[in-house]
Amino acid sequence: MEGEALSALSTPALVVDMDKVKKNAQRMIDRYQRMGVQLRPHMKTHKTLECADLMTGGSQRCIVVSTLAEACFYADHGFDDILYAYCLPFDKVERCAALSERLDLFQVLLDHPDALEQLKRRPLKDGRLWHIWLKLDCGNGRAGVLHSEPEALRLAQAIAGTEGVELTGVYAHCGNTYNCRGSEQIQAVAQETTNFTLQFMEKLKAVGITCKSSIGSTPSCSHPVKDMEQLSEVHPGNYVFYDVQQSVIGSCTLEDVAVRVLTRVIGHCPHRNQLLIDCGWAGISLDGAGKLSTGYAMIEGHPNLKLLSMTQEHGRLEPISGQLDYSKYPLGSLLTLIPYHACATAMMHAVYHVHSEGCLVGKWVPTRGW
Amino acid sequence: MEGEALSALSTPALVVDMDKVKKNAQRMIDRYQRMGVQLRPHMKTHKTLECADLMTGGSQRCIVVSTLAEACFYADHGFDDILYAYCLPFDKVERCAALSERLDLFQVLLDHPDALEQLKRRPLKDGRLWHIWLKLDCGNGRAGVLHSEPEALRLAQAIAGTEGVELTGVYAHCGNTYNCRGSEQIQAVAQETTNFTLQFMEKLKAVGITCKSSIGSTPSCSHPVKDMEQLSEVHPGNYVFYDVQQSVIGSCTLEDVAVRVLTRVIGHCPHRNQLLIDCGWAGISLDGAGKLSTGYAMIEGHPNLKLLSMTQEHGRLEPISGQLDYSKYPLGSLLTLIPYHACATAMMHAVYHVHSEGCLVGKWVPTRGW
Repeated sequence: MEGEALSALSTPALVVDMDKVKKNAQRMIDRYQRMGVQLRPHMKTHKTLECADLMTGGSQRCIVVSTLAEACFYADHGFDDILYAYCLPFDKVERCAALSERLDLFQVLLDHPDALEQLKRRPLKDGRLWHIWLKLDCGNGRAGVLHSEPEALRLAQAIAGTEGVELTGVYAHCGNTYNCRGSEQIQAVAQETTNFTLQFMEKLKAVGITCKSSIGSTPSCSHPVKDMEQLSEVHPGNYVFYDVQQSVIGSCTLEDVAVRVLTRVIGHCPHRNQLLIDCGWAGISLDGAGKLSTGYAMIEGHPNLKLLSMTQEHGRLEPISGQLDYSKYPLGSLLTLIPYHACATAMMHAVYHVHSEGCLVGKWVPTRGW
Repeated sequence: MEGEALSALSTPALVVDMDKVKKNAQRMIDRYQRMGVQLRPHMKTHKTLECADLMTGGSQRCIVVSTLAEACFYADHGFDDILYAYCLPFDKVERCAALSERLDLFQVLLDHPDALEQLKRRPLKDGRLWHIWLKLDCGNGRAGVLHSEPEALRLAQAIAGTEGVELTGVYAHCGNTYNCRGSEQIQAVAQETTNFTLQFMEKLKAVGITCKSSIGSTPSCSHPVKDMEQLSEVHPGNYVFYDVQQSVIGSCTLEDVAVRVLTRVIGHCPHRNQLLIDCGWAGISLDGAGKLSTGYAMIEGHPNLKLLSMTQEHGRLEPISGQLDYSKYPLGSLLTLIPYHACATAMMHAVYHVHSEGCLVGKWVPTRGW
């Protein structure tokens, strides 16, 4: 297929714009180089080797992953300095130990004393240390020990005081930026998360503990505040693709979005004023339900079309207003969907078709599972 | 892992109860044998060889698929008499031709004269015929030519009168049974779909055309009406797994559901009265949003728990009422989710773990893509 046009692809197909990916990756690298902060890109959106290579500027070092399957995949292909930023799953301690004993630097994360107990019970070979990040909740409301609670400091001290382990850093995910609209709101959350994290670092310092600090999310890292220069690291991920959601939040423009799903018209339903396309939830996911006036996605170049509903392999399109002109959409014609949430859409595809200016240049194969 | 207990699995994990799958498969085989109707099971829910073998009673013949990837997968592994029940995608004509020339019996489906034109332009080698099912919309409101419109009969006549092709049958999907509650409502839709289909067969007969007829959906085929005995075939699929949605519709009891997602507790959030589990939408899908009082799934044995929200790898559980007793849910403890929609959940997994009475007996690997 290489060298052919996008229209040569069977649909539905996930297509990735190589030039936009490179631009998105390089812009983030440059931004944090200027700020003197280590960029540790997150792999969970794409889970491919090629994209990881671009996001690390070719170093293949210093990444975050969301699953152990990703960690093993990257480790198997020469990557190192991998942070498994997921509150230590007790069923995976042995696999984490194997990675810690095999890589130069494998790092885990936790937010509970019971997890520390698990690691103490499995000392690493050859005098190696468990490298532990403490997960802090700075307002996101998912995982992490609350930054303001005394137990956060107590847990940090327990990690720092335990033999065979090292408190490597403090890690906060500012996923609450996803409720923001516009850079001002994003920066308010970025500022707050940075403040809470730096205040916690001060508390640590006061009891004689120093370690790294990291915050992240694509919105905050796309619009950093000056105080983020005081952090050791940032860990955004989605930015390499971006998506409609990120453009609505204000992290990017629609122009920056590097992924699309190609689909074809497979049915005319004039009695319902609808078109059928060959992309259902198996091709784009159900993420974004009820969020956009254009339904589950945006239909590129057709602002009056709405992806109203989907079943596994069918999508129903209808006009936002007026009657469909079916002569514009002959059976077999191509349409291009811009995904609401690139992470969710990418997860539905076993292969990504990569192009440069509409000319196919290769395929990327993501890893899957846990 | 074979011989081990389910608790040996890393989570999240899709687990399939082999005994229930066998029972669900055999019950459908027996039902349509008694009625004298050919069962042509749909593969789209599971997409595995092992399950296809059970659904065809070991014959590996007479199946329906939703993608050409499935068709090729089954053809490559000795299956035959395959119906690709998806309105002929124009970009896949050549691949359909290859399957038609390779298998004893490969069948396609269409609902528009333009699709017939595509097939005429690609005559099959060695005097082979294109075997075409006409897709009829009997009230489902997705693909298909409306049963009541004159164009339906005209298209059937055009197929029957075209050289190099054969009108194999008339195919209706009664997906509108998914709006039903209870067997009475299901049977009303099954009766209506059967009536419309048989009336159309009468119209065909009146113009000298005879061919097969088929209707299907898991609800209607789980509660058939007597007149369905007059059909040639039925084509349900989901029944081999069933799910919470089917139990709500009334197709089955919860006891019949053969799939679960195993997950573990990875976080305690007493300040929010929540638990975190290691199953997000990557492990169970976003299907079922807003449909159940228990959220995106049912939590087996814990009717007071609700799967409130999910991100990619995290699920938030909270009690429907009252305060969580965290001592009941230590970190690392297993919970079992019953999926709302088995088709959507299975699509998120690259491997299914199969067990009999909680003892692992093997792995099934589904095909993916299009």
